[in-house]
Amino acid sequence: MANPTAAMLVIGDEILSGRTRDANMHHLAQELVKIGIDLREVRIVSDDADAIVTAVQALAAAHDTVFTSGGIGPTHDDITADCIAQAFDRTIDVRDDARALLVANWEARGVEITEARLRMARIPAGATLIENPVSIAPGFTVDNVHVMAGVPDVFRAMVATVLPTLTGGQPLLSQSLRIERGEGEIAGPLRDLAAEFADLSFGSYPYQHNGVYGANVVVRGSDAARVDAAMTRLAEIFPA
Amino acid sequence: MANPTAAMLVIGDEILSGRTRDANMHHLAQELVKIGIDLREVRIVSDDADAIVTAVQALAAAHDTVFTSGGIGPTHDDITADCIAQAFDRTIDVRDDARALLVANWEARGVEITEARLRMARIPAGATLIENPVSIAPGFTVDNVHVMAGVPDVFRAMVATVLPTLTGGQPLLSQSLRIERGEGEIAGPLRDLAAEFADLSFGSYPYQHNGVYGANVVVRGSDAARVDAAMTRLAEIFPA
Repeated sequence: MANPTAAMLVIGDEILSGRTRDANMHHLAQELVKIGIDLREVRIVSDDADAIVTAVQALAAAHDTVFTSGGIGPTHDDITADCIAQAFDRTIDVRDDARALLVANWEARGVEITEARLRMARIPAGATLIENPVSIAPGFTVDNVHVMAGVPDVFRAMVATVLPTLTGGQPLLSQSLRIERGEGEIAGPLRDLAAEFADLSFGSYPYQHNGVYGANVVVRGSDAARVDAAMTRLAEIFPA
Repeated sequence: MANPTAAMLVIGDEILSGRTRDANMHHLAQELVKIGIDLREVRIVSDDADAIVTAVQALAAAHDTVFTSGGIGPTHDDITADCIAQAFDRTIDVRDDARALLVANWEARGVEITEARLRMARIPAGATLIENPVSIAPGFTVDNVHVMAGVPDVFRAMVATVLPTLTGGQPLLSQSLRIERGEGEIAGPLRDLAAEFADLSFGSYPYQHNGVYGANVVVRGSDAARVDAAMTRLAEIFPA
């Protein structure tokens, strides 16, 4: 049976403007591989309501699970929660359970309750909260979409909460061989090997460094013995 | 007048599987900001023909310019050129000018000409070649889509070739202030400031590090004097 599929939507201008490099995508990709969920697509969009709503609807319809990161804080550019409500035609308001979590934390720390801060308790109707052990303000799940914070520490904590609730598939195993030959030389034999081991996937990732051409060939599959067998053949064909 | 818009399509399983982190997106984002082209969306898809064709068509229709990276080498998993031809309903074959570039280089280096290597000369009908000073095999442009290699050195060289041919807009200037207060405290005054400077964009990017909460507030706009004025006000509202 094919593994479940997933997509990720990264929301925020800071990556598109080149200001920061995304770290959440890389983390999520690594975690999903371990539990046999295939991350098939990532989209990065700006803080624009139409762009967010359109992307969420497209990804939620095409994949078993969608993860979003970013745009759920208290500032004026945090519009993700409202966009998710719109995408699923739900109402949205400050919700008592989310408010209670936040207020308890603020009172303990002597922080004033303001309208801006309470924006973080706006949750679409019918959503399930995602715990945030780092900074309390929760994420939430609507249908197959898990809405999480963009701050990397918080994103990771929320991923750790959500992943055990999902049904995974067969973890994808991979092995790689670094071959110091140009891809043109590797291509023919690699194609033949891929045809022979049709149950595995073969990727070739070229590099060139100080004028030396080579490629990392990665063999992926869920059957460890088959991956081992393919790697043995690969090493015979391209001895170091 | 609004700046031209751009999108990027990253093709390849290696990022979605968590094996590598993308570097090309970050480079392109930084280069586009300098010349006033707004990068509005990035999509990352796997080596799957349907996914590539669908994404190229959607992005090419929605944006002035599209950049792709990855999947134009000689191996069996390099299917980008054929997908671009399909997306634009063009024929594709080994083209004489691309073949001549490659053969001249191979002959000079004593490299055998093989069918696999010649895959790199497959170019959609009517495309314009993009020079590759690093490893010769060219990229190409079809309509508003620039198809480039995924190897970072080659991608950068191709970006450097393509960008001077594009019409840019007003470069986006940005300044940022690191504010060591929680976003809940920043949100209210920041919203008021954003309303007052409606011609600028205000982003708030929270962090938490060793229990200290804060945010980097970024002010963006094309008028340096206005950005300066907003930053001065911001520093008054949130003194260090």
